[in-house]
Amino acid sequence: MTTARVRRLLHSSAVDAKIERLQREGARPGIIGLGGGLPNDALFPRRQLCDAFVAAVRGPSALQYGWPEGSELLRGWIAERLRARGADVDCEDVIITSGAQQAIALASSVLLEEGARVAVDEESYPAALELFRTHGARPVSILRDAICAYVMPGVDNPRGRALDDAHREALLATKLPIIADEAYAELRFDGSIERPLLADAPDRVFHVGTISKTLAPGLRVGWLVPPRAHRARVLRLKHDGDLQASSLGQSVLESFLEREDFDARLDRARRFYALRAKRMVRALARVPGFRFRMPEGGFAVFVETDAEGDDRRFLEIATAHGVSFDPGRMFRPDERSSPISFRVCFSAVAAHQIDEGVRRLARAFDEFRRERRAA
Amino acid sequence: MTTARVRRLLHSSAVDAKIERLQREGARPGIIGLGGGLPNDALFPRRQLCDAFVAAVRGPSALQYGWPEGSELLRGWIAERLRARGADVDCEDVIITSGAQQAIALASSVLLEEGARVAVDEESYPAALELFRTHGARPVSILRDAICAYVMPGVDNPRGRALDDAHREALLATKLPIIADEAYAELRFDGSIERPLLADAPDRVFHVGTISKTLAPGLRVGWLVPPRAHRARVLRLKHDGDLQASSLGQSVLESFLEREDFDARLDRARRFYALRAKRMVRALARVPGFRFRMPEGGFAVFVETDAEGDDRRFLEIATAHGVSFDPGRMFRPDERSSPISFRVCFSAVAAHQIDEGVRRLARAFDEFRRERRAA
Repeated sequence: MTTARVRRLLHSSAVDAKIERLQREGARPGIIGLGGGLPNDALFPRRQLCDAFVAAVRGPSALQYGWPEGSELLRGWIAERLRARGADVDCEDVIITSGAQQAIALASSVLLEEGARVAVDEESYPAALELFRTHGARPVSILRDAICAYVMPGVDNPRGRALDDAHREALLATKLPIIADEAYAELRFDGSIERPLLADAPDRVFHVGTISKTLAPGLRVGWLVPPRAHRARVLRLKHDGDLQASSLGQSVLESFLEREDFDARLDRARRFYALRAKRMVRALARVPGFRFRMPEGGFAVFVETDAEGDDRRFLEIATAHGVSFDPGRMFRPDERSSPISFRVCFSAVAAHQIDEGVRRLARAFDEFRRERRAA
Repeated sequence: MTTARVRRLLHSSAVDAKIERLQREGARPGIIGLGGGLPNDALFPRRQLCDAFVAAVRGPSALQYGWPEGSELLRGWIAERLRARGADVDCEDVIITSGAQQAIALASSVLLEEGARVAVDEESYPAALELFRTHGARPVSILRDAICAYVMPGVDNPRGRALDDAHREALLATKLPIIADEAYAELRFDGSIERPLLADAPDRVFHVGTISKTLAPGLRVGWLVPPRAHRARVLRLKHDGDLQASSLGQSVLESFLEREDFDARLDRARRFYALRAKRMVRALARVPGFRFRMPEGGFAVFVETDAEGDDRRFLEIATAHGVSFDPGRMFRPDERSSPISFRVCFSAVAAHQIDEGVRRLARAFDEFRRERRAA
């Protein structure tokens, strides 16, 4: 192994070690977990998934090996939904992946190389940033000199805001390859969904989707629609990486979609999360020094402050106060901590825990600032 | 992307294109599929897996996100089984992967680099060979100048034979890192299982296992026990790649293992496959020009011949005769076709199809040789 590669890997693990330890502590009972970006358990259709499983397991596919591109039925369903939004997508264009993360990883393997710059938002999805760094690439928040862009149109992470028209146009004008991650795109509170970037630049958009936020992440079903010229390569890399996505997850989803109205389920999820978002925004608005915008969709609010310091220390104090969150540095391409910012998720906790969680957060923030002033 | 990388990827896809097309044709009804290395559907415990699913889905884990290292319960079960075989393995040493393929891919990401030589058997597992090539590494059948070795102790693929003591000693003596793939190791017909290589060289063996051959591949549950010094890096790469293995697959397996006697199930599978193996060997022994050894375990017989030529052409003729197999070049590190050899699997077809499949194969082989002589 090259020294650069060892250094890069060691560096990456070391940077996260403290946050990871705190996040694992934050999953303890008694701590209100506002981190993580998890969907709410109450929305999992357990009974319907059981019925789907029982039906699926009788068929020939659920327990056996499948082809690397995944279930034809699911690929057809995905293609149809994209066509309804204006994209020229065929069943054959879709590759089922082990979640959206693998779709991003496959696109990255095709696009990135050591030293490359990847354009991302001012704040972006942490696991994508980490992945780019592992490839030896550098996430940056400007398009200049980038060899590709990673965006979350529709609903971004962590802000829960849509890519606006000006940015969309600027992005398309660059002619760069684009990884368009729609993990949260179907969870806009107003029910709207944009024309996919894929529709406007099919030859350079790697379209990423998943049912992890809308149905259940445990199934590990996501998808990638690569530009047609890249399909054979992506499929080869998929086969190299894990042969295929879970037959079980795919068969259960197939069988679920045959019986259930997915769009009705999306509506219910949107209404559920919209109420939670309002409740969290109301609670956060009472805390002096917290700035944020109302999310348009998704699972979280991104809070900014003027405080300086180490957001890992802030998380440590918060954990002691019985609340956890995702520190801002995780979302920033340059991993800087100051000024202090953080993501708080309203998605997974019980409604009343949102108020109590934000109260604990406010107390922890006070303590953090006092400690800084005393230092 | 570097030109070398483009060339490598294009090359790889091109080499397999014809075989892949024929393999997909070989999955058509009416064709007896002796390729693929699939477990037999009749051995899938459908009812028990349904019960396991219903129990699992009531719990908190089956549908939600989990940690990248996977289920603690499963890791404990795997560690215990390895300890019983003489290895000093702890729950914390095990990482649950999306099948054995991902375990091999993770080990490869840590060990390989462009231009490296990987020592493998004279014939080896095709998806591992392809993966090594994608990394820009070169599989070779000698240990000299290799930077690591990939072996399948216990039961190898495609021969179904154990690594003998002399080779085991020679391998350990090299001090090379070893990827030890035990995908079939628990399926030795005599029920024996060796001391894992891990027990003798824990600081350089990447131990790979899976339930794909023993229970059901559709769950996509495998595991990797990397040397302790590499654990953090492997975990980081696992997280980058797909966040985690399927929660659903893991929870169903957990719940299945709580209720069922896994070793009794292994016994049944061994007896089942041993009978099939005998039947296939009996059928193959009647064909002039086929040479092979009785497999000691696994799913397949590897047949060698003195015929020269293109094994893809032989597969094409065989498909026309209504039978398919895996051509020898897939298993050879240098991808050579001559002398003609092939893998035939007795695992997945109905028992009577073994005889008929081998009859068709014999006719196809005759035609192939006639065509060669005529040319």
